[in-house]
Amino acid sequence: MGIKFALEEGTIANMNIELISVGTELLLGNVINTNANYLSRRCAELGMNLYYQITVGDNYSRLTRVLQECLERSDIIILTGGLGPTQDDMTKEAVAQVLNKELILDSHSKDRISEYFYNKSPNLDNVQITHNNWKQALTIDGAIVLDNYNGTAPGYIVRDNINGESKSIILLPGPPSEMIPMFEGHVYQYLHNLQDKVFLSRIVKICGIGEAKAETMIEDLITNQTNPTIAPYAKDGEVHFRVTASATSAEEAEQLICPVIDELERRFEDNIYSLDENENLEDVVVKLLKKLKMTLSTAESCTGGLFTGRIVNVAGISDIFKEGYITYADEAKVKLLDVNKETIDKYGVVSNEVAREMAEGACKTSGSDASVAITGIAGPGGGSQLKPVGLVYIACKVKDNIIVQEHIFKGNRQKVRYRTVISGLDLLRRSLLNILS
Amino acid sequence: MGIKFALEEGTIANMNIELISVGTELLLGNVINTNANYLSRRCAELGMNLYYQITVGDNYSRLTRVLQECLERSDIIILTGGLGPTQDDMTKEAVAQVLNKELILDSHSKDRISEYFYNKSPNLDNVQITHNNWKQALTIDGAIVLDNYNGTAPGYIVRDNINGESKSIILLPGPPSEMIPMFEGHVYQYLHNLQDKVFLSRIVKICGIGEAKAETMIEDLITNQTNPTIAPYAKDGEVHFRVTASATSAEEAEQLICPVIDELERRFEDNIYSLDENENLEDVVVKLLKKLKMTLSTAESCTGGLFTGRIVNVAGISDIFKEGYITYADEAKVKLLDVNKETIDKYGVVSNEVAREMAEGACKTSGSDASVAITGIAGPGGGSQLKPVGLVYIACKVKDNIIVQEHIFKGNRQKVRYRTVISGLDLLRRSLLNILS
Repeated sequence: MGIKFALEEGTIANMNIELISVGTELLLGNVINTNANYLSRRCAELGMNLYYQITVGDNYSRLTRVLQECLERSDIIILTGGLGPTQDDMTKEAVAQVLNKELILDSHSKDRISEYFYNKSPNLDNVQITHNNWKQALTIDGAIVLDNYNGTAPGYIVRDNINGESKSIILLPGPPSEMIPMFEGHVYQYLHNLQDKVFLSRIVKICGIGEAKAETMIEDLITNQTNPTIAPYAKDGEVHFRVTASATSAEEAEQLICPVIDELERRFEDNIYSLDENENLEDVVVKLLKKLKMTLSTAESCTGGLFTGRIVNVAGISDIFKEGYITYADEAKVKLLDVNKETIDKYGVVSNEVAREMAEGACKTSGSDASVAITGIAGPGGGSQLKPVGLVYIACKVKDNIIVQEHIFKGNRQKVRYRTVISGLDLLRRSLLNILS
Repeated sequence: MGIKFALEEGTIANMNIELISVGTELLLGNVINTNANYLSRRCAELGMNLYYQITVGDNYSRLTRVLQECLERSDIIILTGGLGPTQDDMTKEAVAQVLNKELILDSHSKDRISEYFYNKSPNLDNVQITHNNWKQALTIDGAIVLDNYNGTAPGYIVRDNINGESKSIILLPGPPSEMIPMFEGHVYQYLHNLQDKVFLSRIVKICGIGEAKAETMIEDLITNQTNPTIAPYAKDGEVHFRVTASATSAEEAEQLICPVIDELERRFEDNIYSLDENENLEDVVVKLLKKLKMTLSTAESCTGGLFTGRIVNVAGISDIFKEGYITYADEAKVKLLDVNKETIDKYGVVSNEVAREMAEGACKTSGSDASVAITGIAGPGGGSQLKPVGLVYIACKVKDNIIVQEHIFKGNRQKVRYRTVISGLDLLRRSLLNILS
């Protein structure tokens, strides 16, 4: 599986870790702290003891106070946020002060910032970089600088010796789109190397079964778990189980995990869409289409492009994706997809019959082998007793076979649309699997 | 040129507050802490100074330690979680110990718990209530008991005098479906009554200027701020400023805020897209289209439906949105949008010229008044020295006017596509504003 772990013998002491989220926007409730959740999960997977998550505002004295307290009781501190160019951003300054270190110019970071702005506006002779951006080129003396490929603020790892104990302070940018790649690219391995126990985890991704039902199906396994552990995570419309084993070697951990994965596969069968950490539902669908050498087209009404957006999310889909039609209006369905006006009049535009004709029309117009068509009532208006908000028809045509599913999704407009996209992807996945079997 | 901030006389001290979220599931990253977000927002609206959010596991000694620290520095502590029936639930016990108070049986709570179980299974003659449920009928001596209408664990408000200072400790259940109704039903008004000040905040939403530049433009205002305060926060591709004033009346707070909002409007002009808390960029665009009685169609390549997905996000758009074309393949652009094959051959499919023809084609094919067309290289493959990954052309046609913008976005495929959508919405917004002016 290509998973290599550096092994160390001897005392297996878990590292204590704390997370500090910096940002007044968190204390004002403007932003949900998903970073703390993400990092906590990853630290748990590494077998680290997370003591506290602390959120502090953009306030210098409170931040330094918290830092001092954390340094006294923990081995590792991860800070997110407060690395940006503005006056409010003071994480680096606070860490430097608490560790009694200097902030010095890092010319590599300086070059990267110039480059970032130049690339953003290559046609301007004079790229105007406001002076506060250069604040981001300052590093804490002795720190490892972590390049940011998704923004301007670099991250840092500072290792210091305090009262004879080695401490690691890790500074990461606040936006999750910058924080997560930086953590995965640099920090995960760093933390891993600090541990002397091997933790191995595998994921089982399930679609088409609710969380409660999925948990009931393996209640006995969850109740009796010790090592490995099985932790369920519900994502809108999906359920993931993470199986984690700790051992003294990767091989041993692997041997503990394998029978559990086998058992989960036996119980969930083709409701499992992937065992790969980095594979999404759309990745699996595109992989199946490529394997079958089939092309796809889409016809969306209430989802208005979101379904296709997910498919096009997959890099290199130009071989399989032909055309997409967003036919919100009835006339568009008739004109672009050749839906029969009479079918709309007779059954209503949100109906099994119209979904079916949309799927047929999408294949015909584009000349594709497969299609997915969606028509529904996302709300908040447009519902009736007979056809309530949340009613969605999804049709999937693969070769000469069409399946139409009726769903009634709960929740607001966004939720209905999101659930529809997941169900559409899963329907296409199952239809393609059918051909292969 | 700075504006004058009215300074407040007297010493109306804000209440300091802290949130403690209790639960090992939060530290393991199994659950996102939405409670902290919810309570932070409500406390900010009440004008309370939130010092810290702290998450601690189901660990008695760490919880009592945190409680002691919080009591030293804050007037109000809100704890969520750890009120349930199991051994892991120890919030009430920890608070009682720290305040040196007894736990006593509350017969009202006992009756309510019996009732809850009876209502859940009215058809069972013998309702079996496991003994640990009675733990939930214990209250802290002297506490106000808050009934839970959505579960079994009651909440508590404990008021105590510590070193001559009045402290309020509020205990709420962990599940949001129980916590939120209890907070709204009992606690909000309690907190409100503790305050003698009014807080009011307004938001200024900006698009098309980076965070660093936006802050530089009002650096003087931020440096000199006292009341109101101006807090910036960056959302991918957008910058929001929150202006917050405290006063003895809502009218007075409004009078403090207005000149600051006026000044921000003067400086940022039409880069401000909304002053409305609940209004997104796509809402503004749809509002403008409705005002102008114009219809829209879209033609997307690399964004593959995401742009249209944002537009269709707005409820009730059927009057203005006509059709959307997702033309990932060259042939689709030629077939559906009437893009000239020679233009593609000559300039490449990612070019100013093709974007222009796509926008024209979208209007022509659909008969719409306006269109947005997008062609670009989202990566990771497909880039070249001349046309790097991240190069995107966005064309916007409004009546007879076409504007084409060239962008080079940094970041991964997702980020490039997301930024493209924001820029496309902003270009359409500005094009529509042009007509109105």
